[in-house]
Amino acid sequence: MTRQRENYREDVAGRANVEDTPELLAYYDELERFDAGALWTVANKIEPWEPQSTSKPVIWRYADLRAHVLRSVDLVTPEKAGRRVIYLNNPGRQDVSAAVGWLYSGLQVMHPGEVASAHRHSATAVRFIIEGRGAYTVVDGHKMTLGANDFVLTPNGTWHEHGVAEDGSPCIWQDGLDIPLMNALEANFYEVHPDLNQAVAHPVDDMTKTWGNAGLLPSGGDWDKAYSPMYKYEWAPTYDALQKYAAVTDGSPFDGVMMEYVNPHSGGPVTQTMGASMQMLRPGERTKAHRHTGSYLYHVTKGAGHSIINGTRFDWKEHDIFCVPSWAWHEHANASDREDACLFCLNDLPVMRSLGIYREQAFGENGGHQPV
Amino acid sequence: MTRQRENYREDVAGRANVEDTPELLAYYDELERFDAGALWTVANKIEPWEPQSTSKPVIWRYADLRAHVLRSVDLVTPEKAGRRVIYLNNPGRQDVSAAVGWLYSGLQVMHPGEVASAHRHSATAVRFIIEGRGAYTVVDGHKMTLGANDFVLTPNGTWHEHGVAEDGSPCIWQDGLDIPLMNALEANFYEVHPDLNQAVAHPVDDMTKTWGNAGLLPSGGDWDKAYSPMYKYEWAPTYDALQKYAAVTDGSPFDGVMMEYVNPHSGGPVTQTMGASMQMLRPGERTKAHRHTGSYLYHVTKGAGHSIINGTRFDWKEHDIFCVPSWAWHEHANASDREDACLFCLNDLPVMRSLGIYREQAFGENGGHQPV
Amino acid sequence: MTRQRENYREDVAGRANVEDTPELLAYYDELERFDAGALWTVANKIEPWEPQSTSKPVIWRYADLRAHVLRSVDLVTPEKAGRRVIYLNNPGRQDVSAAVGWLYSGLQVMHPGEVASAHRHSATAVRFIIEGRGAYTVVDGHKMTLGANDFVLTPNGTWHEHGVAEDGSPCIWQDGLDIPLMNALEANFYEVHPDLNQAVAHPVDDMTKTWGNAGLLPSGGDWDKAYSPMYKYEWAPTYDALQKYAAVTDGSPFDGVMMEYVNPHSGGPVTQTMGASMQMLRPGERTKAHRHTGSYLYHVTKGAGHSIINGTRFDWKEHDIFCVPSWAWHEHANASDREDACLFCLNDLPVMRSLGIYREQAFGENGGHQPV
Amino acid sequence: MTRQRENYREDVAGRANVEDTPELLAYYDELERFDAGALWTVANKIEPWEPQSTSKPVIWRYADLRAHVLRSVDLVTPEKAGRRVIYLNNPGRQDVSAAVGWLYSGLQVMHPGEVASAHRHSATAVRFIIEGRGAYTVVDGHKMTLGANDFVLTPNGTWHEHGVAEDGSPCIWQDGLDIPLMNALEANFYEVHPDLNQAVAHPVDDMTKTWGNAGLLPSGGDWDKAYSPMYKYEWAPTYDALQKYAAVTDGSPFDGVMMEYVNPHSGGPVTQTMGASMQMLRPGERTKAHRHTGSYLYHVTKGAGHSIINGTRFDWKEHDIFCVPSWAWHEHANASDREDACLFCLNDLPVMRSLGIYREQAFGENGGHQPV
Repeated sequence: MTRQRENYREDVAGRANVEDTPELLAYYDELERFDAGALWTVANKIEPWEPQSTSKPVIWRYADLRAHVLRSVDLVTPEKAGRRVIYLNNPGRQDVSAAVGWLYSGLQVMHPGEVASAHRHSATAVRFIIEGRGAYTVVDGHKMTLGANDFVLTPNGTWHEHGVAEDGSPCIWQDGLDIPLMNALEANFYEVHPDLNQAVAHPVDDMTKTWGNAGLLPSGGDWDKAYSPMYKYEWAPTYDALQKYAAVTDGSPFDGVMMEYVNPHSGGPVTQTMGASMQMLRPGERTKAHRHTGSYLYHVTKGAGHSIINGTRFDWKEHDIFCVPSWAWHEHANASDREDACLFCLNDLPVMRSLGIYREQAFGENGGHQPV
Repeated sequence: MTRQRENYREDVAGRANVEDTPELLAYYDELERFDAGALWTVANKIEPWEPQSTSKPVIWRYADLRAHVLRSVDLVTPEKAGRRVIYLNNPGRQDVSAAVGWLYSGLQVMHPGEVASAHRHSATAVRFIIEGRGAYTVVDGHKMTLGANDFVLTPNGTWHEHGVAEDGSPCIWQDGLDIPLMNALEANFYEVHPDLNQAVAHPVDDMTKTWGNAGLLPSGGDWDKAYSPMYKYEWAPTYDALQKYAAVTDGSPFDGVMMEYVNPHSGGPVTQTMGASMQMLRPGERTKAHRHTGSYLYHVTKGAGHSIINGTRFDWKEHDIFCVPSWAWHEHANASDREDACLFCLNDLPVMRSLGIYREQAFGENGGHQPV
Repeated sequence: MTRQRENYREDVAGRANVEDTPELLAYYDELERFDAGALWTVANKIEPWEPQSTSKPVIWRYADLRAHVLRSVDLVTPEKAGRRVIYLNNPGRQDVSAAVGWLYSGLQVMHPGEVASAHRHSATAVRFIIEGRGAYTVVDGHKMTLGANDFVLTPNGTWHEHGVAEDGSPCIWQDGLDIPLMNALEANFYEVHPDLNQAVAHPVDDMTKTWGNAGLLPSGGDWDKAYSPMYKYEWAPTYDALQKYAAVTDGSPFDGVMMEYVNPHSGGPVTQTMGASMQMLRPGERTKAHRHTGSYLYHVTKGAGHSIINGTRFDWKEHDIFCVPSWAWHEHANASDREDACLFCLNDLPVMRSLGIYREQAFGENGGHQPV
Repeated sequence: MTRQRENYREDVAGRANVEDTPELLAYYDELERFDAGALWTVANKIEPWEPQSTSKPVIWRYADLRAHVLRSVDLVTPEKAGRRVIYLNNPGRQDVSAAVGWLYSGLQVMHPGEVASAHRHSATAVRFIIEGRGAYTVVDGHKMTLGANDFVLTPNGTWHEHGVAEDGSPCIWQDGLDIPLMNALEANFYEVHPDLNQAVAHPVDDMTKTWGNAGLLPSGGDWDKAYSPMYKYEWAPTYDALQKYAAVTDGSPFDGVMMEYVNPHSGGPVTQTMGASMQMLRPGERTKAHRHTGSYLYHVTKGAGHSIINGTRFDWKEHDIFCVPSWAWHEHANASDREDACLFCLNDLPVMRSLGIYREQAFGENGGHQPV
C-alpha cells in the first residue's frame, strides 16, 4: 500500500531531491517486491556530508560505579555470572552494548583466590587494572602479573583467563573489547576452554621481559602474529617514558605529551583492531580542540581536569572514564598547576588506519577552543 | 521501574545463567541511572558461539529488475535524483540499505550524452558494466572507457563521475560500495566537486595501459596510495587469464577456477575495504560447500547454474546477482556440460584480512554437499 | 723496515693530509705488527668523493661472439665442461670474472636433445633466449618452455636445469648471474642434484599461466618466497605492454619508454639481488644523459642504435650486449626514424634499493648530452 | 701467446674438468681478444661448494692497541689527520682496509674540547664508546651524549660530527663502518659539511628520549627513514634488558642470552647494512659451535673468556675485539663461574637477510664442540 515517505531531500546540486508522486509511490512499492528500492529515496541519508556518530559523550565516574561493582560480588556468583562485570552502556549504543562506537567496556571485580574460566573469542581485549593486589592474566599459557595502571592484552583467538592470587586483595579493573565490532562484522566466535583452565607453560611475565626492552629484541625471536608479543604494558616504565619524552618535545597542541603503545616487533599498534595510548597533560596545560574519525575511550590514570566534548564540559578525576565519539570536537585541560594529569585511551585507530579512513581536523575559530 | 528481562541465559559452564530476583532487578535499574548495565544480562547475546548474520540469502534476477531500472529514466531526472539507481535492499539489512553485510549495491542506468556530477566520498566504489556502449568513468582526472563486464574502481577519496558517450547506447551497470560500512564506522564524508565536473587531464585509459601489464610495471612508477592504480579491469583479459590458469590448476574444491583482482603495485586487494574476484565453473562442475567470514555479492558474468546457500537452492543466469552472508554455507554448480559459467564477486575480504578475522570451514558431511 | 708510503693525501679541509716522517713510518711499522694501521694513510682512498667503478664500458658484439659460442660445441663435451659457455670478461673485473660490477654473464649453446645436469646455488640466474627453438628450463619441478627474447628466472636456492627439446634447433642464450656478488659476500653455496636431473612435477609453463596475468592472482595463492613465482617472462606480452604504455606516457628523458619486470605477488623486483627491465626507444628517439649507482648490462632485443657511456660512443644492433658501470654517464639513441629499438637490461638495482644506496644524477650541461 | 692455465678442474659429475689442448689454448687466446673467456676454465673457481672467506680470524687486544691509539695524539693533529684513528687491518683484507669481510673498524681518540669536522657519506657508522667522559655525537642536528659502552648510529647520508666536551676526559671509542662494502658496491659518496660544523637544532639526547621507550612510540611520530630514529643505545638499559630476558629464557645453545638492537619504528635492524647485538654468557657458560654467513666483529663489553674460531682458541677480556669471518665455526666460553661476560657484536646480517642469503649450520660432531 502506498504511503508517504521520508526521502531525505536536499536542495543542493548533486544531491537527491525528488518529490513523491502517486506514480513514484507505486513504483517504490513495486521495487519492494523484488527486495529493491530507489536510491534517491535514501541517498542523502546514507551519504551524509560528514560522520554522524550515534554515540553520546558520556562520563562514568568511578565514585558512582565502584560501590555497584563491589556489590555484584554479593549479588551473583562467578559460576552463574561468568564474570562479575558492570558494563558501560552508552545511551546511543544500547542496541550493541557499546561504551562508544563499536567498543565495549566494563568494570570487573574479582576476589583473592578466584579465577575465571578460560575461553577465547574473536574479540580482542585489553584489561586495565584500577585497584587491588595480586591480579594476573594467563594468555596462551603465559602468566602475566598485574599492578595498578598496568594493562594486559588478550588478543583475538588467544586462550585467556583472569585471576587474583590467594594472598592478594580484591581487584577491580576495566575491560575493553571490540565485541560490538566483531558482532557487526559478523565474525565473532566464542569457545570455552575444554579444561576450563590452562596450564602455565612459561616463566611468569616472560613475554614482557622478553619483548619489553627499548631498542632490543630477542635475537632470532620469531613472531608471526599480528598482535604484540609484549602482552603486558606496565605503568612505571610508561610514566617514565612520558617524562623522558616530555623533556624533549613541545607536545601536541591537541593532546599534550602523548605516546602510543606499540607492538615492539613491528612498531605498529598493539592489536589489529584496538589501539592504546597514554598522554600527559603537563601542569596547567590546556589543549586546543580537534576532531577525528575513530572512537575513543579515556581512563583517567592520574590527576584531575576536564574535557570539553562537542561543547559540553566533563570534569574528571582519577579512574573516571569518558568517551569521545567519532568526529566529535574535544579538548582537554589539567586542573592542576603543579601536578601532571595522565589519560589512558583505548581506541579503534588501527581500524581507521588499516581501512584508510582516518581523518583529522583542527578547530579553527576562537583560538582553537570550543565555546561552552 | 522493575520489569522482567531477557537475560539470554545458557546452562553451560563458562556462560552466564543468572535468574532475575527482585534484588537484581532493582540493581539493574540502579545501574541504568549511571549509563551502565550488568554484563551477565547481555553476555551470551553479545558473545555468540559463532557469527549470526542478519543478512538473508537473496537473488536479484536481472529479468525482474531490468525493466524497472530502465523505467527510472522516465520517472526521475538526473538533476533531481542525483543518479538513477535501483538499489538492492536485503530484507535483513533495510536499516542500512545494504545488499549484504555492510555492502551497498545498485543498478544504475544512463543515457547517451548524460554525465553525472562529480563527487567524492569516503566510501569506495566498484562499477561493473552490464550492458550498453560508450560508458566511461573519470577518476581523479583519468578517463576510463568501459565495455560489458569491465569494472572500474573509484576508491575512497577520489573525485569521480560517470557518463555515457554521445554516440553510445543506454548503459546499465552495477554499483558496489562500502557505504554501509563507512557509515557504521562513522567515517563517511561526502563532497560535491566545486565545478560539478572534472577536466580529463591524462590520456584516455592511461592507468590501465600503464599498470595493467602482467609482470611489468612502469619504471620509476611511484604510487603511494593504498588502492590499485589500475583503475579499470577489463573482461577480455580476465577471461583469458581464467582459461590460462584453468589449463594448469586443479582449481578449488569450493570455487572452481578462481582468481582475485589485485593491485599490481603491491599484489594486494584492489582497495582497502572491498575485494573482487572472478571464478569459472568448468562445464559440469559442481563445487563442495564451505563457509567463511565476510559478505559476498555475486554477479553472474557468463552462463547459468545454481548455488545452494544455507540449504536453499538459487538458480541463476547471466547478470543475476545473489549474495552469500557471512558464515553461510554455500556451494555452486554450473548448469551446462558444455559451456563454462563465470561469477564476479564483490566482497569485504580485505576488511576480514586486515583485521585478522578471516575464518573458513569446509562442510564435512554428505560428501561436502548440503542437504537441500 | 720503513719505506715511503702512498698516503692518498689531499689538501682539503676535513680530508687527511699527513706527511711521512721517520717517526710516523716507525709508528706505521709498529701498528702492522698488531694487524692495524693509521687511518689517515688510507682515509682518502677508502672514502672517495664519489664512486670509482673498476668496470670498463664494453660492448660485446653478437657478430663477434656467435661463431665462437657455436665452436665450443666441437671443442668440449657437456660432460667435461659442465656447460658450454663463453663468459663476458670485463677488462676491469677479470679477477672476479664479471661482465660489469658484480654481475656475471655468458653466452651458452645447447643442441637439441641435450640437457644440463641439475644443480642449485646461492647465486640467482636469469636466462635470456637469443635464438633457437625448443629451449626449456626446469625450476624446482616446474618446466618452462622458452622462445626468443623470453627469459626465465632460476632464483637463489632453486634446483634448475636447462635443455633443448629433441625436435628443437641449436639454442643460444645469455645467462646473467650474481655469482661475483655471492662470492664477494662470502655466501655462495653450490650443490649438484643427487639424481643429476629433476622430475617435472607440474603442468608445463604453469607458473607463468598462474601468476602472469595482469591485475589477477590465483585466489588463495600463497607464495612465501622473496622471488617472483612468475618464472618465465615472455617477449610478446612484454612488447605489447611497451606499446600500450608508450601510447599514454611521455616516457623518461633518460630511458624512453621503460618498464621493470616485477614479482606479481609483491610488485617488487623479480629477485632480491637482480632486477630486469625492458625499454623502448621510439623511432628517432635520443635520450639525455644521467648516471646512477648500480651496474647495468644491456642486451639489444630489437633494432639498432648507439649509447654514449662516459663520453665514448658504442654502436649496437640486435643481440649485442653492452654494460654501463656504476655512476657512469650514459645516454641512448635509436638509429632508426621508423622502427623502435628495445633494450633488455639486467641490473643490481634491487641491491642498491634494499641497502638504501641508489642515487641518480642528470647531466646538467650541453642540453643534457655528453660531449663525445 | 698460448700458455698453461689453472682451470680449477674437479673430477665430479656436474663440475668442469677440461684438459688443456693446443686447440683449446688457441681458442682461449682468441676469446680474450673479445673480452671473453671459456666458463669451464673458471667455473669451479667462481662456483665454490661453500663460501671461502678471505678474512682471517683475528683478535685485537686492547692492551696492545691502547697505547698506540693514545700516541697518535702526539703524532698527528686532527687538522692534518682528519681523525686520529688506528684501524683494524685484517691480514686477508688489507686491499680493502677491512677488519672482517666488508666491515671497517678503528679505534679513535679525542681530547676534551676537540670536535671533528662534520661530514656525511654513503657509509653507515656505529661508534661504540670504550672509555672517557664527555663524548658526544651530532647527527643531523641532534646531539647525543655518550658514556662507556653506549653506541651511536650515524647512518648513510646523515651529517655527523664527533666531539668531547671541554670538561670531559680523553675519550677512546671504536668506530665500525661499512666503508669497504660501499666501495665494493661502487656507491660511496663523501661530502664535507659546508660550515665544517652543524648547529645543534634539538634538545640534547632527544632521539633516544623520544624513541627509546619499551613498547611506546611518540603519538603521530612519523619516521620515513630506513634506519633507526633511536640514534643512541645506552649500556645501562641494555644490560638491564639482558638480565630480564635471561630470567625467562633458556638462551641460545650457540650464543647464550642474545638480543639484537632494533629500530623501534619497525622492529628491524638499526640500519640497512649493519646490525648490532649484545649477548651475555652466563657464569660458567660455554656455548656450542655453529657457523653462518655474514661477517661478525665482537667487542668484549664485560668480563673475560675465550672463543674458538675454526679450531683456534682466542682468549679475550674487556675491550678486546675479535672477528668471526663468514661461514667460520665459532663457539664462546665465559672464563668466570661467578660473573657474566658480555659481547657486543657488529655485523652485516641486514645485508644477508635483505638479499636472502643468510644461512646457518650447527656443528654436529663432538657434542657440538670443535676439536682445538
